[in-house]
Amino acid sequence: MQGKAERMFPGQGETLSRLWRSRQLEYTWLRALMNQYADFWQVTREALIYACRSLGLGCEVTHQDELMQEYLHLQTYPDVTVGLEALLGQRLAILSNGSPRMLEAVVEHAGLTRTFATLMSVDTVRTYKPSPTVYQLAVEALELEKSEIGFVSSNYWDVAGAAAFGFPAFWLNRTKAPPDELGTAPEATITGLRELTDLFGRRGAR
Amino acid sequence: MQGKAERMFPGQGETLSRLWRSRQLEYTWLRALMNQYADFWQVTREALIYACRSLGLGCEVTHQDELMQEYLHLQTYPDVTVGLEALLGQRLAILSNGSPRMLEAVVEHAGLTRTFATLMSVDTVRTYKPSPTVYQLAVEALELEKSEIGFVSSNYWDVAGAAAFGFPAFWLNRTKAPPDELGTAPEATITGLRELTDLFGRRGAR
Repeated sequence: MQGKAERMFPGQGETLSRLWRSRQLEYTWLRALMNQYADFWQVTREALIYACRSLGLGCEVTHQDELMQEYLHLQTYPDVTVGLEALLGQRLAILSNGSPRMLEAVVEHAGLTRTFATLMSVDTVRTYKPSPTVYQLAVEALELEKSEIGFVSSNYWDVAGAAAFGFPAFWLNRTKAPPDELGTAPEATITGLRELTDLFGRRGAR
Repeated sequence: MQGKAERMFPGQGETLSRLWRSRQLEYTWLRALMNQYADFWQVTREALIYACRSLGLGCEVTHQDELMQEYLHLQTYPDVTVGLEALLGQRLAILSNGSPRMLEAVVEHAGLTRTFATLMSVDTVRTYKPSPTVYQLAVEALELEKSEIGFVSSNYWDVAGAAAFGFPAFWLNRTKAPPDELGTAPEATITGLRELTDLFGRRGAR
């Protein structure tokens, strides 16, 4: 993401990527609160348009299209493949802000199509995390109790939302980020997906 | 705000103030979405705790208390007093994320107690802007139609929320900030409160 942005706008790649990402999240929260849902593809593009405008970068539609493509080909972290393989005795699912098309493209690009039993997109309920409506989607799709679903995210706010909803929630903190202050706490903090094997085994999650 | 932070943590005042403010807003949106309301005083302190932790600043409770006091004594911009005086033929009200105590303290400190007919806090409905529930509070308290209430904010996202709700909404853009991309637009953009006299006069708002 940052690499392509840097080649396109030398010296501004990191700033653009950060602002784009932060606005992307903010726009999901704001649109969810305003009851003005637009799908993640649209919100992502709108955040990019804002970020470019804010930095004075001429970001034509062709530039936007090229940067947006990155969201269909996200790279996985090194711990992902081995971490997920170790969990294959469990039912694995994704619950994502991404639109169905984005989600399918990313999973396919990462070679994880057969790893996940279910891909769930907020698009079904037309709102965004951390609304309880989104987490409820997983309860219904998986036909499990809240307490039987182990929820993992690298975003602290997403973990906080899942914990407030009632999931056993695990914060994947790869970067030693400080926790947010949102009134709820994860059940445990891990630094890589491999650590889940022990945690989920102990809980007997399905 | 920034001045006191700078004296307390030399060289970090601006960074701390910015991070504090951005987290403060984010926490309101997240808590509103999670249905985990805590009042603005608490959220503001939690955002400060996060910001200090994130920057590695030892922010004891006494430091927190001192910085928090700033939120009870916010300075008004130079256009405020004269701009509001010019509007005194209208009913003026405040609709704020602030808790009632914060709101009363700020208005009193600014010498505006007799200027506003009504001070409305989101605390009544226990959620945050830009939830439609908050804007509805004004409709009920003022006993006016949406179309009769001119809504003004310097936060673009707040204006977008008000416009989506149905208020004629005006963006007070003092700093030439770029507009956000949230699918709604203000009725007009102004650079100081004085410009409202013409706009509201023309609309016949009450």
